Amino acid sequence: MDEIEIHELNKVKLKKPVMIEGLPGVGNVGKLVAEHIIHELNAEKILELYSWHFPPQVIVNGDGTVSLCKNVLYAYKSEKQDLLILSGENQSVTNEGQYLITETLLDIAEQYGVSRIYALGGYGIGQLVEKQMVLGAVNRVELVEEMKKYGVEFREGEPGGSIVGASGLLLGLGQLRDIPAICLLGLTSGYLVDPQSARAVLEVLCRALDIEIDMQALKDRAEEMEKIVERLKEMEQAQIPRTRDEELGYIR
Amino acid sequence: MDEIEIHELNKVKLKKPVMIEGLPGVGNVGKLVAEHIIHELNAEKILELYSWHFPPQVIVNGDGTVSLCKNVLYAYKSEKQDLLILSGENQSVTNEGQYLITETLLDIAEQYGVSRIYALGGYGIGQLVEKQMVLGAVNRVELVEEMKKYGVEFREGEPGGSIVGASGLLLGLGQLRDIPAICLLGLTSGYLVDPQSARAVLEVLCRALDIEIDMQALKDRAEEMEKIVERLKEMEQAQIPRTRDEELGYIR
Amino acid sequence: MDEIEIHELNKVKLKKPVMIEGLPGVGNVGKLVAEHIIHELNAEKILELYSWHFPPQVIVNGDGTVSLCKNVLYAYKSEKQDLLILSGENQSVTNEGQYLITETLLDIAEQYGVSRIYALGGYGIGQLVEKQMVLGAVNRVELVEEMKKYGVEFREGEPGGSIVGASGLLLGLGQLRDIPAICLLGLTSGYLVDPQSARAVLEVLCRALDIEIDMQALKDRAEEMEKIVERLKEMEQAQIPRTRDEELGYIR
Amino acid sequence: MDEIEIHELNKVKLKKPVMIEGLPGVGNVGKLVAEHIIHELNAEKILELYSWHFPPQVIVNGDGTVSLCKNVLYAYKSEKQDLLILSGENQSVTNEGQYLITETLLDIAEQYGVSRIYALGGYGIGQLVEKQMVLGAVNRVELVEEMKKYGVEFREGEPGGSIVGASGLLLGLGQLRDIPAICLLGLTSGYLVDPQSARAVLEVLCRALDIEIDMQALKDRAEEMEKIVERLKEMEQAQIPRTRDEELGYIR
Repeated sequence: MDEIEIHELNKVKLKKPVMIEGLPGVGNVGKLVAEHIIHELNAEKILELYSWHFPPQVIVNGDGTVSLCKNVLYAYKSEKQDLLILSGENQSVTNEGQYLITETLLDIAEQYGVSRIYALGGYGIGQLVEKQMVLGAVNRVELVEEMKKYGVEFREGEPGGSIVGASGLLLGLGQLRDIPAICLLGLTSGYLVDPQSARAVLEVLCRALDIEIDMQALKDRAEEMEKIVERLKEMEQAQIPRTRDEELGYIR
Repeated sequence: MDEIEIHELNKVKLKKPVMIEGLPGVGNVGKLVAEHIIHELNAEKILELYSWHFPPQVIVNGDGTVSLCKNVLYAYKSEKQDLLILSGENQSVTNEGQYLITETLLDIAEQYGVSRIYALGGYGIGQLVEKQMVLGAVNRVELVEEMKKYGVEFREGEPGGSIVGASGLLLGLGQLRDIPAICLLGLTSGYLVDPQSARAVLEVLCRALDIEIDMQALKDRAEEMEKIVERLKEMEQAQIPRTRDEELGYIR
Repeated sequence: MDEIEIHELNKVKLKKPVMIEGLPGVGNVGKLVAEHIIHELNAEKILELYSWHFPPQVIVNGDGTVSLCKNVLYAYKSEKQDLLILSGENQSVTNEGQYLITETLLDIAEQYGVSRIYALGGYGIGQLVEKQMVLGAVNRVELVEEMKKYGVEFREGEPGGSIVGASGLLLGLGQLRDIPAICLLGLTSGYLVDPQSARAVLEVLCRALDIEIDMQALKDRAEEMEKIVERLKEMEQAQIPRTRDEELGYIR
Repeated sequence: MDEIEIHELNKVKLKKPVMIEGLPGVGNVGKLVAEHIIHELNAEKILELYSWHFPPQVIVNGDGTVSLCKNVLYAYKSEKQDLLILSGENQSVTNEGQYLITETLLDIAEQYGVSRIYALGGYGIGQLVEKQMVLGAVNRVELVEEMKKYGVEFREGEPGGSIVGASGLLLGLGQLRDIPAICLLGLTSGYLVDPQSARAVLEVLCRALDIEIDMQALKDRAEEMEKIVERLKEMEQAQIPRTRDEELGYIR
């Protein structure tokens, strides 16, 4: 086994595709968006990437079979805009692997003539999100104004200094190769899987790509999640008066 | 020294052998089964595998001599079913080593024309096991029904999402090479060496291989262990009043 | 991407330059000095060094663009003394990277005919510094007396046994290549970014290099920082009586 | 810089030398013995070994100069028995480095025709040692009886299962090369540098090598250390009544 091993399943021809990266991360926001797009557009699996930089484990599927950790690339062809969508079970667990796997992904992007990369993720703020928002970062200054048109926010000092992992490196290493790349980060608590945040990111992405994708499945998951959050809030509030009583008891 | 070093001790000819892996892990279940089989069948040591991915240490044996950390492969020839049995003191402590050593073991398996791999281990549930059970995972969907016939259980969501280490990778990397592989995980507390769980796994394995192996030694160890567990239980129950007494003594 | 990648931006000719290293570290003392010099002398960026030994992340700049982690070398030409100044966002996060990157920096130093290296840093003492001081360490014994003339202190047992990271290795690996190198460590609390300590180090450096550099910007930052420290001290003092009141309230 | 770099300072001819390893470890027992021998026999420094597997740091010496982390080999020639003595500031901090550096040391041992290796260290028991004792482990079973003659103890289950680091690997990897090797472990608390334990190990070693080495310096250090331990014991005893008073005060 090589350090990074590419299994090409299908060779497709794409017209200046846009690459969308949605690997696991904060709130699983990026992965939720990528998997939603793959499912809704019925995108075709074209490539698997294995590496010893992934954790040494297999995932046990519902039917009793196992899957080795990997990143997977899907292709979608259409009149308007061809897409390459990247998802997977894991990111590299080593620094070196993060750099090398991102470089391999950029090699593949160049082979397919990728015109632009959207790296998707969540930005954890450590509390429940009151108002959905999508923060941006880019690897070319002229992309800032363009992204603002689609509703992306740029704020000094946010996203908090640095973007860690595949999303960050796609922008940083993409910069050295002159591939335009945008990172879209949905605000999220960071505590829970967040389909609501994923929906906000997907809406921005659809505007930017000028495509339409049915969001019902994501809305349904978001509503389910909201019910869970409501229940968590109630449980928390039920606790507050008790705490107040104790505090009063303490002050008296 | 190479990253992985193979010392071949004996060259044997085997007829479509089945490989059985029992490296150290949860409850030492896999290792107990493998060592029991090696001992009962008087299997022949044929190969040692050394690697700098093992811990940098030696084991001190009872006679004052030392043994370098290694994996060891044993062969057993019979009319019915030839076997290759893998055991050892350690698994790799690095991710990279886990992948590379498993690949080396699969190379060896292919050289011997291995027809199937059984990877053995324990599945820790964090409490004493009431009823013995052997959970399964496979790298080909058709193996599920076959394994059920031998008493293996397949439950959605169990074994808890992922199988870490050599057992998992033998299935995952074996899948890429088209070698059928089954993981048998004996339920175990995860706190103690568990010969009882090992016996349950061995019983399934004997049914699957249609061979007979004397289990007395494993039964004896299981009974010893049960006595230890009983004593631990008693001590735990006895401890509560004693602690109270001590506290009273202290307060008086 | 190679393990270490050099992007040469400008080729300059320098006359026996002195190399000044100011990478991030305790109190950010070294980096503050290096960046102050680069800014005040308007030094020219000549080289970027990328490596997978840096953290796998990008820094988000104020304008929404990102920068990949790197070390950067600047050049300054003058009648009196040519300089090479090294700064950057990060040091290597692996041991191996620390050694290899320092070796690469020494290769570059040799290519430019560097006559001497000053490695700058902070020495954290775990409490507020009463009296500024610059401790020294050298890789040739005859440099001790010379450095004392510029106000550098040498004390047995300080800086506490060892110097970790790029500064230490520039001296240690420089020794093997026979490149004279001096480490200047400004006393600092270790809790805060310390422009006051940076100023002390810069004053010693200017005396040693016999150059003049305007220190106003560093003085301004030091004054700002002092105000913050004053406020922190007040808050701390204010807290004590309040805590006592609470305790009294509790006991009553 | 290579992964491991050998700087040969002097080429000497030795007659079937015995190699003595005393790198830092538990109680610094091995290093104390090795450095005592080097000093007393006025052994000649012949080789330095550098590696990026050592910590990325330099030691600051008393005179203000620095030393890069390294292992150092010394030679001693005599009528009776030539010696190679290994000491240094550090052991490798990576697993891989432990294996590779030990292999390099064994290569050197073979070049010099080493007839036997003594690997010295401490065996931490977690409490003050009442009676000095030297535990042994060997890589050939016939060495057990020989070592017992010199006062080395062999006890089943001790030294506690495994010997970690250079000492262990010299035996384990030496076994694969058929170089006889003995590990001598002085009982020590594990909390303090232990010249008393070092003396016990040295006495065994002198008997085994049939050489005489003045032990006064080690006796002096042991006496100093004993005074420190006495003071620590007194402080501990003095503390108990005070603690009782406080407890009484609390209960009243």
